Amino acid sequence: MVTSSKIFRYDQIAKQLEDSILNNILKVGEKLPSVRFMSKQQQVSATTIFKAYYQLEAKGLIEARPKSGYYVKFRHEERPTPVNKSNSQPSVKSVNTNEIIQELEELRNSENIIKLSSAVPSPKLLPIAKLNKSVVEALRDEKNLLLKYTHPQGNHELRRMLAQQLMNWGGNFTPEDLVITAGCMEALNISLMILTQPGDVIAIDELTYFSIHQAVERLGLKAVSIPVTANGLNLDFLRKAIDQYPIKVGLFVTNFHNPTGTCLPDLQKKELVELMTAKQIPIIEDDIYGELYFGKSRPSTCKYYDTEGWVLYCSSLSKTIAPGYRIGYCQPGRFLEQFAHQKRILSLSTSSLPQAALLNFLKKGRYDFHLRKLRKALHTQALRYSQCILQYFPVGIYFSVPEGGFNFWIEFPKGFDSYKLFKAAKHQQISIAPGQIFSVEPTFRHCVRLSFAEPFTEEIEASIKRLGELAEQFMNN
Amino acid sequence: MVTSSKIFRYDQIAKQLEDSILNNILKVGEKLPSVRFMSKQQQVSATTIFKAYYQLEAKGLIEARPKSGYYVKFRHEERPTPVNKSNSQPSVKSVNTNEIIQELEELRNSENIIKLSSAVPSPKLLPIAKLNKSVVEALRDEKNLLLKYTHPQGNHELRRMLAQQLMNWGGNFTPEDLVITAGCMEALNISLMILTQPGDVIAIDELTYFSIHQAVERLGLKAVSIPVTANGLNLDFLRKAIDQYPIKVGLFVTNFHNPTGTCLPDLQKKELVELMTAKQIPIIEDDIYGELYFGKSRPSTCKYYDTEGWVLYCSSLSKTIAPGYRIGYCQPGRFLEQFAHQKRILSLSTSSLPQAALLNFLKKGRYDFHLRKLRKALHTQALRYSQCILQYFPVGIYFSVPEGGFNFWIEFPKGFDSYKLFKAAKHQQISIAPGQIFSVEPTFRHCVRLSFAEPFTEEIEASIKRLGELAEQFMNN
Repeated sequence: MVTSSKIFRYDQIAKQLEDSILNNILKVGEKLPSVRFMSKQQQVSATTIFKAYYQLEAKGLIEARPKSGYYVKFRHEERPTPVNKSNSQPSVKSVNTNEIIQELEELRNSENIIKLSSAVPSPKLLPIAKLNKSVVEALRDEKNLLLKYTHPQGNHELRRMLAQQLMNWGGNFTPEDLVITAGCMEALNISLMILTQPGDVIAIDELTYFSIHQAVERLGLKAVSIPVTANGLNLDFLRKAIDQYPIKVGLFVTNFHNPTGTCLPDLQKKELVELMTAKQIPIIEDDIYGELYFGKSRPSTCKYYDTEGWVLYCSSLSKTIAPGYRIGYCQPGRFLEQFAHQKRILSLSTSSLPQAALLNFLKKGRYDFHLRKLRKALHTQALRYSQCILQYFPVGIYFSVPEGGFNFWIEFPKGFDSYKLFKAAKHQQISIAPGQIFSVEPTFRHCVRLSFAEPFTEEIEASIKRLGELAEQFMNN
Repeated sequence: MVTSSKIFRYDQIAKQLEDSILNNILKVGEKLPSVRFMSKQQQVSATTIFKAYYQLEAKGLIEARPKSGYYVKFRHEERPTPVNKSNSQPSVKSVNTNEIIQELEELRNSENIIKLSSAVPSPKLLPIAKLNKSVVEALRDEKNLLLKYTHPQGNHELRRMLAQQLMNWGGNFTPEDLVITAGCMEALNISLMILTQPGDVIAIDELTYFSIHQAVERLGLKAVSIPVTANGLNLDFLRKAIDQYPIKVGLFVTNFHNPTGTCLPDLQKKELVELMTAKQIPIIEDDIYGELYFGKSRPSTCKYYDTEGWVLYCSSLSKTIAPGYRIGYCQPGRFLEQFAHQKRILSLSTSSLPQAALLNFLKKGRYDFHLRKLRKALHTQALRYSQCILQYFPVGIYFSVPEGGFNFWIEFPKGFDSYKLFKAAKHQQISIAPGQIFSVEPTFRHCVRLSFAEPFTEEIEASIKRLGELAEQFMNN
């Protein structure tokens, strides 16, 4: 029959490439030959090559990256939904931090340690020379202005450039709407300070960055933990919690959540904002990872759906360009005046010099260029690391490759003690982040956050292999 | 008789110089000819000239400045003690800030205004080129370290250099004892945050920097105002207040107090520390102006007398070298651990770049050199300004020339409304700080803080003259 015997040229090309991918000749994260190159090499039209690539893309083997071409995509078994605790009742706890954090912090400044625990970009991924150039240019341009206090809300021109950045997700702000802070942490702290009193109850992600727990504890607040699953935030649980407790604020990491990597679907963001707005409960949105997406477009934000100003949008330049500079910012919605006032009381204004340097960097268009490079690098690292984890870690673990950010969230079987693994790994000069530091519940002792912020090397591969061996030992005991 | 007719050569020389001074040929703040020059010119021994100068010094007409020579000293009528409210009873008030501060803040960023209201060194007094050089050297030396978070307590080497600075008043600390903060304001805020709960009562200077009132208000604290007189803090009043209220903390500016310029005598510092230590009440000591002394030696600190760690010593580099950089520090005594923890929660660490720049500046020995120049310049400005005030301001005002810092505290007769003067001055493009913004009591409406942080010029002279005319109008009404 005609139909069955007919094999199109693009089918053949797709088959060849598929074999290369399945046989690991083209490795995960690597770039496919360009369409132009292939069409020349195979002596077919560009359309034929595109058809082949579309086929591979449909099969989930490759993916297009904007303005960059096609790349081999990571594949893994259907991922299970992490333990969903929505059946349990919401409960209020005083947040308690622990000594593990201290131990982990001490590793941060050690040399000679393979850091698989830090959710900050490796300096190797950062444009040091260009940033230094921006510092020098800022010194020249700003002259003695740098010695003066900047406006309490921060350098006006930098706020203008940041307002431009926020257009990436449809944000529509003026410089007057923004306040520059000493990193995202100061923005979160100020938000909590102006919205709460000691003893108040707030809602937070069940798993979250430990400094958030510490801030909550220091302010004398009580937290209701809202479960985060692969599908996002459990809004039903949140609704129940709001009915049950006088919740004053919700503080959520909405994109590439730390530690789970979860991204709230955009529709869920909308729903969350509507839910909280109806109850007049402010949302502190931590979108520090939002720009680090691996897909085709930036995920949206709660702020985007915020029509009445109940969202305090917090972010920073720490995760993308200069952690040590401590430059963050906030769009506090209807709380702008209180926020700016509190910022002024707390530290008068943010340091002039790093603001001026980053302003220069942004104005020269260096930031967007850098972000594109950084996203590609992180994406490739994510794929390389994950391939290694699959290869070297014991059967029976679950993890997923996030679509942005720095972190894998690895679930070992229940009963596994990730602190033991942490200890053993530390002994081998490897640092990882055990799950329990991200929660006030003991529920996540069997999980580990593993970061791929460092470029992939043979040394990293050896470390992951070693970790896998250690994990296997503990699982067999 | 022999004794009466005998006129020594040095008497003659002293008389000549005295005439020159009284006739304003040698103006206040100007340098006298050097001893070597005079001895050559008058053909007498250096000893004779020294004797003449000692005589003038004893009369209070001139003063020696270390390593610099003799200068014409400011003279004024015996200064009256500012209103001493120690007869009234201590009372607790919720601190309320007001709109005048807002109005004043808006003037801060205006161009074309003569600023007699800002207690920050003019950029003209700061070594911009050398500091910029330090920034560039820091970029070169620190390489990619600047992109990483610094230690939560701050750059270790900078802490070491600051510990050296504290030896100026006998401080004996290691880098581990210090925490670097975003300016002195963050240090004060953190101190208050770790030592108090909302509703607590604290003791503060009756007159103080308005941001301190605002911080106290934001934290929900109640303040007992302790009177500050020309003789220092009213310790009897403080004792009474401690007996009457459960005071949790005392927050005091101990040297060249803002706004009054008062310096606590060193013996009083000792007494204050002993008093508070006996009651186990921590002292937050704000010594931000301590290095800006005009006399022969740096005044001491409460911290110097603190044997049991109850003093949290806060200071910064903002008033001496780089206001906009926002680099302050704290030696929190026995509260070190809590302080460092709170700092980490609030902003992880202080910005790396300005820390590295100031470290370089200090290490190169540029700071001490700069401080010597700055002190001289400020001293001369203080004298020039005060001469102008005496000349152009109406009779019936009281003020004193401080022995350090940036500020005159001018008392008009009771009933005078300094806010009216502020408004009228603003209309003439002159900014001054009306007294009521420094107190929660209405008692200081008749006072004005006038700063001499800008180098003296004809324009400044004209402004002071204009201010004097305005003041006279208001006093006659």
